[in-house]
Formats: sequence, C-alpha cells, structure tokens
Amino acid sequence: MKIRFPMIDEPIEIQNGTVIVFSNKYMFTRVVRELYFYSEERSLKIYEKDFREVKNSDVMIVTDILGYDVNSKNVLKLIYEDLENQLNSKPEVKTMIENLSSTITDLISYELLENELDLEYDEITILELIESLGVKIETLSDTFYEKIVEIIQVYKYLSRKKLLIFINSFAFLSENEIKSIIEYISLINKKVLFIETLALDDVNYYLIDDDFYLSRHE
Amino acid sequence: MKIRFPMIDEPIEIQNGTVIVFSNKYMFTRVVRELYFYSEERSLKIYEKDFREVKNSDVMIVTDILGYDVNSKNVLKLIYEDLENQLNSKPEVKTMIENLSSTITDLISYELLENELDLEYDEITILELIESLGVKIETLSDTFYEKIVEIIQVYKYLSRKKLLIFINSFAFLSENEIKSIIEYISLINKKVLFIETLALDDVNYYLIDDDFYLSRHE
Amino acid sequence: MKIRFPMIDEPIEIQNGTVIVFSNKYMFTRVVRELYFYSEERSLKIYEKDFREVKNSDVMIVTDILGYDVNSKNVLKLIYEDLENQLNSKPEVKTMIENLSSTITDLISYELLENELDLEYDEITILELIESLGVKIETLSDTFYEKIVEIIQVYKYLSRKKLLIFINSFAFLSENEIKSIIEYISLINKKVLFIETLALDDVNYYLIDDDFYLSRHE
Amino acid sequence: MKIRFPMIDEPIEIQNGTVIVFSNKYMFTRVVRELYFYSEERSLKIYEKDFREVKNSDVMIVTDILGYDVNSKNVLKLIYEDLENQLNSKPEVKTMIENLSSTITDLISYELLENELDLEYDEITILELIESLGVKIETLSDTFYEKIVEIIQVYKYLSRKKLLIFINSFAFLSENEIKSIIEYISLINKKVLFIETLALDDVNYYLIDDDFYLSRHE
Repeated sequence: MKIRFPMIDEPIEIQNGTVIVFSNKYMFTRVVRELYFYSEERSLKIYEKDFREVKNSDVMIVTDILGYDVNSKNVLKLIYEDLENQLNSKPEVKTMIENLSSTITDLISYELLENELDLEYDEITILELIESLGVKIETLSDTFYEKIVEIIQVYKYLSRKKLLIFINSFAFLSENEIKSIIEYISLINKKVLFIETLALDDVNYYLIDDDFYLSRHE
Repeated sequence: MKIRFPMIDEPIEIQNGTVIVFSNKYMFTRVVRELYFYSEERSLKIYEKDFREVKNSDVMIVTDILGYDVNSKNVLKLIYEDLENQLNSKPEVKTMIENLSSTITDLISYELLENELDLEYDEITILELIESLGVKIETLSDTFYEKIVEIIQVYKYLSRKKLLIFINSFAFLSENEIKSIIEYISLINKKVLFIETLALDDVNYYLIDDDFYLSRHE
Repeated sequence: MKIRFPMIDEPIEIQNGTVIVFSNKYMFTRVVRELYFYSEERSLKIYEKDFREVKNSDVMIVTDILGYDVNSKNVLKLIYEDLENQLNSKPEVKTMIENLSSTITDLISYELLENELDLEYDEITILELIESLGVKIETLSDTFYEKIVEIIQVYKYLSRKKLLIFINSFAFLSENEIKSIIEYISLINKKVLFIETLALDDVNYYLIDDDFYLSRHE
Repeated sequence: MKIRFPMIDEPIEIQNGTVIVFSNKYMFTRVVRELYFYSEERSLKIYEKDFREVKNSDVMIVTDILGYDVNSKNVLKLIYEDLENQLNSKPEVKTMIENLSSTITDLISYELLENELDLEYDEITILELIESLGVKIETLSDTFYEKIVEIIQVYKYLSRKKLLIFINSFAFLSENEIKSIIEYISLINKKVLFIETLALDDVNYYLIDDDFYLSRHE
C-alpha cells in the first residue's frame, strides 16, 4: 500500500508501522485535513499494489487515543464469537458451564410454577451468559501506551479495515513505548501509519521538510 | 365506580364482573365508540364514588382477545420483580442459584484471561438470568378462555389500571366459561365490565333494550 | 383462493367478500384460533389455485376494528408516495409549491447568515412538506362502518397482503352497512373473508351448522 | 475557577484562555489521563471560587478537533430555538414565511381531497421548516482554526458546561491563529484551558518544568 501526498512526487510505501514526520506545521495540518476528509476526489491518494484506491471506509484515523471507544457493537460481537469458539474447543469446560446453567434453569423454573400466571421460558445460552457478564475491553485505567495497543488489537479484529492512522500520537508516548508499539505492529502484519511533527532518534522515519523534500532516516 | 350512558338516566354500578347487554345494535355500537374515544368531553361518563371522573389512561379496553399482547414491557418488568421477590423469600434457593452463577463466572473468567485483549466483566445477576431465560406469559396455544384469564391477571398486575372492559367477548366463550371467569373476577376484587349483545340464562346482567329502558336480570 | 376447515370435507372458495357463518360456537372459536395461529403445520388450510399454501404473513386478521391502527409506517410511506406521484402528474401545482418552498428557503437562509455560527442547509423537499403536514388517515371520529372501509382501503394499498379476514364484525354493523361493504369489496377485486356467528337475510353466505354440514345461502 | 495538579503545591487560576505547558512528557501524559478520568476521587482537582468541585459532566475535553461532532442533538435544538427567536423578533419576515407555508398547506390539502382515503393533516410549523432545511453547523471543509472556533461557539451555547479543555491543540495551529483564538475566548467570557507540550513566544502561559516547578511567562 502506498500514500502519495500533494506536492511530493514520490509516493511512500506504507508498511507495518510507517512513521512520517512533517517539520513544516502548515504542511502537517494540511495533510491531516486531507486524511480526515480523504476521498477519491482529493489530491492525497492511498492505493494498493494494483493501484486500486483504498476506500475512506477502510481507513481508521485516531487522534484522540484515550477518548477512542474500543467497545463498539462490532468489536463486542467479534469478542463474543471468539469466546464462544474458545469454549467450543474446550468441550469439558463448555459442558460444565452448560450443566450449571441447566441447574439454574431448573431452579428458576420451579419458581415459575408457583406463579399464578402461565409462564414460559427458553434456555440460557453461553452467549447470554457472556452478555450478562458484561464482558468488554477494560480501558478505564489505561495509560496511553496500553490504550494504543488495544486500539491496534481492535483494528486487527476488524478485518475489513485496511489502514490505521495515528495523528500526533508520539506526543503521548515515551521513546521506549513507541519502539515497543512498532515492534508489536510488525508482529500482527497489518498496515499502521503514524503522522508526526517531531522526529525520534531510535525509530526509522520518513521526513518531509520545509522545502517539501522527502528523506528516509534509519 | 359508576357508568352513565347518554340517553339512560340511571347510572350503573360497575362491580367485579358487571355485564351490560344491549339489545339494540345501534345503541351497542354507539356505546362501544364512546368507550373507545372515552374522554372527559364525551357524553358517556365513568366516575368513582366521589364523582371524580376515571381517566382514559386508567381504562383497558379489550376487543381482540387472542391478538392482545399480554407481554408488554411493563408487565414483564412486574413479573421479573415478582420472581426476584419470590427468590428473596427463599434464601436457600437464591444462594444455590448465586453459587452456580458464581462458578459459571469463574469458568468464563478463566477463558477471558487467555484472550489477547484485556477484558473486564461484572457479575451475572438473578435478573439477568431471568431475562436470559426469556421468561414470559405463555399464550401461543391459548384458548379464548385461557387468554381472557391471563388478560385479567395482567390487569391485576397493572395496579394503576382501574377498569377493564371486554367488548363482545361472550361470542367466544361457552356459558360455563363465562360463569367461571366472573367467579374468578369476584375473587381478585377489581372492576371488570362486559359490553355484550346477547343475554345469557345463568349470568346476572343489565339489559338496555330497544327503548333505552334499563332492567336488571338476576 | 380456497379455505379448507378441519372436519369439513369440501373447501370453500374465497372471493371478493365471502361470508362464512358458524352456528356452533365451539366450532366458531376453534376456527378463529386456527386462523390466528395459522401456519403450514395447522389443520386449517388456505391455498391458491395452484395449491400453493398462502403464507401467514400474507394474511391480515382484524377483530378489533376501532382499535386497528391503519397509520402504520408502511401505509404512510405508500400514501406519501401516492401524493408525490399525484403532484408529479400536475407540474403546474408542483412548480407552485416548489417556488413557494424556495422563497421560504431564501427567507430563512438570510436569517442563517446573521447567526454567529457558520450554518449550512439543504433544500425543503415535497416529501418533507408532506411529512411536516403530518398527513395521515383520519380515524378518530370514525364509526365502525367508516373504519372498516378504511381498513379495506389500507389492505388494498398493502399489495403484498393476499387475504383480509374480519372476525365477528357483523356485530358492529347494520345490514345496510354490511351490504354496502360487500359491494365495495367486489369493486376493488381483493379477497376478503368474514367469519361470523349470525346469518343475515339479504347477504349471501356459507353456513356451517352444528353437525358440521356446509350449505350455501343466496 | 482553579486547577490543582498532584505534585504541584500552588493551584493555577483558570481564566478565559489559560495555557499550561508541560516540558516533561511523563507529567504531561499523566495530567491528560487525570483530566480524562477526572472525578472527585482523583488527585487532580478543579474547583470553583467557593471550593465546590467542578463535576465531570461540566467539563468538555477536546483532543480530536477535526473529528469532534459539533452537531449534537442538544446543539441543534439550541440553534433552532435561536432561529425561532430571531424570527419572532422580525414579525414581518415571520408573517411572510407563515403565509407562504399556509399557501403550500392549501395547495397540498386540495390534493389530499382527491385521495380515496380520508386524510387529515396539521400545520407546517416554522420549526418543521428549519428541520426540513436540515440546518446545521457547516464543518466539512473546515481548517483546524475554523473548527476550534466552532467548538468554542458550541461550548458557549451549552450553557451548562463550565470548562472547555483542549489537549495538544497548538500542534495544529499557527502562532497567529492561537493568538486570535485566545482573543476570541476573552470576548465570550467562558473558561478555556489549553494543555500543551511546547511554549510559544507571543502567548502568556504557565510552565511546569521537569522538576515540577511552576512559572508564569508573560
């Protein structure tokens, strides 16, 4: 996948954790706006190997790390499916849960008989138990580092998304945290782009300077 | 509680199961319309002992017995509260359910640890178990008789409702069923009115004849 | 379209306004229940000329005439489409409305300029004007006769519905009203079935008597 | 209104546009987290003159400027009320709109008469016209500067909010834009706080340095 900025001739290859630093603030804000309003009519282009343009809906942009809600309906649905599959692969645990749940059903159904109304009921499914437990990604006490890792994991879950872009996120991370995050991204093999204003010593990056000159720093 | 019809001088006392038969079809349909559009501006009046008018929102009118949805949100909420109270009064059963539910929570929480995401969860409450069981009033295979009994029970549950009116319901019931329903109503001590077109031998009723003459038959 | 009752050998042809009278109350209530819970597994059968069974979702059953809500989302959508088409066929009226609406837009847009916020707006469509007018079927002051006619018109609108069944509706109608309704149905050419308990002199009907004997009365 | 950071003895007075710069990245991210999870149990405190703590719900935090949705239901409701009041203060314009709208109503109502259904309608209100116009704050083509000004205007609209905090927003603004925004804030007389990592020459700010030493720069 490649990104081509207006004013810069050469496109940049987006890999698993590509950092682009803009030394010029005007250029930086202009590029961020292009990314936010990214569409086929815009001058900034993101395209796949076969030159097909990446759709706006395939891109996730994150500026507000702590404010990002990872527990969307879609993500929770995928987590619950994961947990169900995990239990399906452990028949003995699943059977234990089903037996316990069946005993609860029996106990409550005796009580239903005492009611003056003619009450009916179905069964308690594993999914309903997971939902009743209110399972979700824990984020309340997260640091910026932990939350970014979770956003990347959620991006990995959302298989339809093709590109995750963080804007100015290095302002909230130490150098060690940034290196650790880029290592983590390289493991999951998905495209992540960091658009930044400040360069770092120990991290590879592309620099676009005040004269719109592109250089690579490794 | 009393009901006063236009054209009839004397009001009729509504008790636990009062039957009013109209021999005149025009009068019958006119009264039914007055009941449907019942409001303070109408000529038909329903009022309490102290002459305060009964509000439209306090009256339940049922014509379509089989089509009546007894499982409204309000009713289910009351049923679930009932079941919770019932379990609170049986601490040993409640403790058994809570222990089983706590074991399920432990088993699932072990699985959560294996997930790459940092997942959190709360507890499974008794109410959530009841909801997961999908407890509701069974109505699918009901006869007219069974469904009417359930509607009366639901009316009893909805303590804010002050009057339940059935329109032409005797068309769907045998004489024995009608007698049994009226006996049942007398036990629960709530006001129920039947507006009918045909008299019955063994049931007390008021008759309003073609000359708007009111008579009592016991 | 034909209906075959359990216990009766011969099926009955359903036409535009077919009346079936049950002299036996037990048989009547049983048939009504079969119609309410009508499905392919049931013993009561409704089928098309080619013996394909009519689906439950193609049948509309009405017992509670005054309580029936004719202004469903579907019906309103169809009415609004009708009105839009009607206006499209009268370009001069449509143009008048559009010009008036455009002048309103201009007047309000001047006011938007005075606001400290940078406000945007789109245009006022004909559909939005119809919705703002709150156009809907008037039913509040309806008699049973008027409401039944409206239910039949709504049934005609809902082209996917194949059969409309009224249960015990003659209790609320005079003989003249019934004849007028059956005439109206014959004009719109859609299947309507009346399931009744009392025969009428001047209306053709099928009678199913206490011995489950079927006879035709014209 | 004052803010007291953990580790810093002296509280800082929040005025109409107060800038606090943290030279230490660890301290910066810790403070931002405290602000995001701000509550009475936290060590960071924000309080009014009378030492009453400012509630979490009274604070608006904005990190993602371009992604911030200014057109919330609340804001649109306030804008529509504003426009209605504006029109009420110009009776001649309001009367013109009402007359045009009344003519539209007449034209459509003639069409309703032609429909086979008995249709009713109410009137088109000024509010319905504004809603049909889809009036909202224009943001699609906004620069960071324009969007920040709109967020501040929206904050002014939401009279219940007592404090607006921007996190790291200077990364997206030129010095002239920042000065212009701070001037604008001083005019509307509401509390706005900027939490930043880089100092600016021409803007007053508080600096918290690596030794947690607080200094004022004017």
